Amino acid sequence: MSEIRVRALPGIGEITEGTSLVDVIVDALERSGQNLIDGDVVVVTSKVVSKSEGRVVTFDGTDEAREQLIESESRRILRRRGPLRITETHHGFVNANAGIDLSNTAEGTAVLLPRDPDRSARRLRADLRRRLGVEVGVVITDTFGRAWRHGVVDVALGAAGVVSILDLRGTRDGNGRLLEVTEVALVDEIAAAANLVLAKSARTPVAILSGLDESYFGEGSVARDVVRPPSGDLFR
Amino acid sequence: MSEIRVRALPGIGEITEGTSLVDVIVDALERSGQNLIDGDVVVVTSKVVSKSEGRVVTFDGTDEAREQLIESESRRILRRRGPLRITETHHGFVNANAGIDLSNTAEGTAVLLPRDPDRSARRLRADLRRRLGVEVGVVITDTFGRAWRHGVVDVALGAAGVVSILDLRGTRDGNGRLLEVTEVALVDEIAAAANLVLAKSARTPVAILSGLDESYFGEGSVARDVVRPPSGDLFR
Repeated sequence: MSEIRVRALPGIGEITEGTSLVDVIVDALERSGQNLIDGDVVVVTSKVVSKSEGRVVTFDGTDEAREQLIESESRRILRRRGPLRITETHHGFVNANAGIDLSNTAEGTAVLLPRDPDRSARRLRADLRRRLGVEVGVVITDTFGRAWRHGVVDVALGAAGVVSILDLRGTRDGNGRLLEVTEVALVDEIAAAANLVLAKSARTPVAILSGLDESYFGEGSVARDVVRPPSGDLFR
Repeated sequence: MSEIRVRALPGIGEITEGTSLVDVIVDALERSGQNLIDGDVVVVTSKVVSKSEGRVVTFDGTDEAREQLIESESRRILRRRGPLRITETHHGFVNANAGIDLSNTAEGTAVLLPRDPDRSARRLRADLRRRLGVEVGVVITDTFGRAWRHGVVDVALGAAGVVSILDLRGTRDGNGRLLEVTEVALVDEIAAAANLVLAKSARTPVAILSGLDESYFGEGSVARDVVRPPSGDLFR
């Protein structure tokens, strides 16, 4: 029977520039009596990745500073409404205010997105392999709004060791016919599942998924596979 | 420790008009030795809901019939590219081809979306309560593409007994500050999590989530809470 488990990893303390993510994850695993095994996926919210990578800037809270910061992190502003900007970031993500955390941060600072979240994921995956001897997937997430639907969901900004888009072309349905809808954004569904255990606690930035199908593991990249280039997009 | 389980429910046979969903679910639970308890969420893909409700129409496979069918199920066509239509359905969902299943169906037929997926969810929830004496949530899902990102994800079309949008306003983060991003589309994250066990098998249309936070349960409606009215949308 197909079954997955999604659990929060408690006990991740404050992260600042230079904090080793693998150290705090290994410590939190030990203190909570949990372990990682081959085939698990470690999900980390981008905010702690950003902090550990020093992507924190001074921010005085003025509208002007806010506007400048959003513009410097964006390739293009797609829409404006009141203080809200829908942006295309330098990574190619379409999100609100370039994904900059302007409020849930230490006084006088703002937190930018990681510069290259796929690389951050690859690094953490390699560090976990080195420290614990396990082959796990890593997904770095952030919270995005959507067109057409209210509410935010967690999506993947970066991934390593997990197939970002699961290609089901060639799979047959119950009638033996080829499936039409074929490319599942697996990393985004992993991000969403993780948020079901993380949403209630801003203090818990790490979740672990176990039991995922082995076909979900392989080379993956959000930047390459999930980000839709403007030329192929009907809505910007 | 916060932990959820997501499992597929095997053994759901062919569904046709008039098939009782609660009967097939109860049978499948018995045969697989699984059970439902209070606080579980039952996720059902919309296709089997549609079939059980007789939302199957004849379709001869011609471009003209295809176009007519999509138009009759839509309030508005937002974009056209080749044979693809991005539609706003009568429910207010923005999706591809009005969510009509034109290919993975019995010869000469197409499957439309349920007419009122929230009502379908409420009915199944009430039936499960009556048959098994359990208070569970129900989420009806479908597979949607997204603007800006490649790949499809499962989202909620209807819900009962689950809070559709989790309002975290007033929640404080690790620094004691109020969280800015506050309204999580919980039912869409539940749909996505369920698809992690369902994506690989078109024969398995039902998943069960256990262990969700008790604050996730309550009155919910996708039509009322998740569908964004055109007037409040920056992207159509």
